[in-house]
Amino acid sequence: MSTPQKHCVEVCFTPRLFQDILTKDDFIVVLVDILRATTTICTAIGNGIEKIIPVATVEEARRLKEEGYLVASEQDGRKLDFADFGNSAFSFTREKIEGKTLVYCTTNGTRALEIAKSANQIVVGAFINISALTGWLLEKEKNVVIFCSGWKNKFCLEDTLFAGALTDRLIGSGKFQTNCDSANASIDLWNMAKDDLPGYLEKAAHRHRLKKLGLDDVIPYSFTFDQVNVVPVFDGQVIQIEK
Amino acid sequence: MSTPQKHCVEVCFTPRLFQDILTKDDFIVVLVDILRATTTICTAIGNGIEKIIPVATVEEARRLKEEGYLVASEQDGRKLDFADFGNSAFSFTREKIEGKTLVYCTTNGTRALEIAKSANQIVVGAFINISALTGWLLEKEKNVVIFCSGWKNKFCLEDTLFAGALTDRLIGSGKFQTNCDSANASIDLWNMAKDDLPGYLEKAAHRHRLKKLGLDDVIPYSFTFDQVNVVPVFDGQVIQIEK
Repeated sequence: MSTPQKHCVEVCFTPRLFQDILTKDDFIVVLVDILRATTTICTAIGNGIEKIIPVATVEEARRLKEEGYLVASEQDGRKLDFADFGNSAFSFTREKIEGKTLVYCTTNGTRALEIAKSANQIVVGAFINISALTGWLLEKEKNVVIFCSGWKNKFCLEDTLFAGALTDRLIGSGKFQTNCDSANASIDLWNMAKDDLPGYLEKAAHRHRLKKLGLDDVIPYSFTFDQVNVVPVFDGQVIQIEK
Repeated sequence: MSTPQKHCVEVCFTPRLFQDILTKDDFIVVLVDILRATTTICTAIGNGIEKIIPVATVEEARRLKEEGYLVASEQDGRKLDFADFGNSAFSFTREKIEGKTLVYCTTNGTRALEIAKSANQIVVGAFINISALTGWLLEKEKNVVIFCSGWKNKFCLEDTLFAGALTDRLIGSGKFQTNCDSANASIDLWNMAKDDLPGYLEKAAHRHRLKKLGLDDVIPYSFTFDQVNVVPVFDGQVIQIEK
């Protein structure tokens, strides 16, 4: 009886490093921007939004607002005047968004989506959908690249902790392996942080940026497992539940 | 009595990310390529070599060999035929090199030196000169960017562990601070690894690459503190002891 070959999981710490990944051919990208884009996308999809159209520039978001779309757009953490929503998960309530289409522009997340379009399939990951996501990835039986959005192309701790938590689950399943130093470092940082996430996050620079802006109210929610049971999939045009 | 302002230390995980560092103006770059370029450079300078001329391409190394220079040149870990030395620290013995000039070309290290030329001052760091280096940096009273060479632009554990060890010493002095997530992650990984470095290094992909090539004999030496008492400085042309 032969042992089935394990799939590989690799972690990319920032969009700048995506060009250097070793995983080739037929892999799934898990897009991560815990504070706050991917947490917000999972919340919106979980609360019944029909589809999300990601855009990379504020100009495009503004143009689509004029065409009548609901628009979420923020810059440096703040909702822009013309937009209906900023980037706080809490504003995407079911009564406001159920069944609708949303145009979504953020500083980090959608730029990362643009870059990751070269992948075969892109899904959206966050602590709030980690179990649904893990189950989905285990069913697909493909290699996985966890793509951290970082902050202005820099490594950031909050995305790395999620990468570690997800990698740990994938390898723990027995179906995945890694020879990626970034993946191994992520697992170690996650294991160091997981028993006291609020304490550990005091080290994260972006946590302090959000605090200064008064936008840190979503942090406890953003680090809570399994608030939604959805896996948003990006098909190159829109983000929605897999049909 | 006012508290003197602390200087900043930032960690850059790979050459690709150097363009995104936040530290501006008048900073010192510590170049790190533990396996093996910066360990080798510190060894050669420690064993009395007069100066090292780094070059970025094999073609340039070959041309300078024809001009009569001693040349070290390797590709993917192997000494090239025309060269006098490869990249093993052990080959740079005092009797072979004392008082001489060496042209030095490596896969990772010298390419990183080229990139880091935009810094004000560049010094060469390794575990084998960490105490000399720490003392030197504390005297300079400038911001510090620790520049990890990584492997083919990817994050690597061995350079990150050194970055953590050095950052830990700088902050421990009371004269430095950081708000860099990469620096904080490096410190945590170092603290996790330091009590069993050989065990921890089993996770490092490059450790296995060197083993396959039969080039891992330098690993215990490369992770031994303070084998030499020198701080090689790169002035944009040559690497030598500060005059």
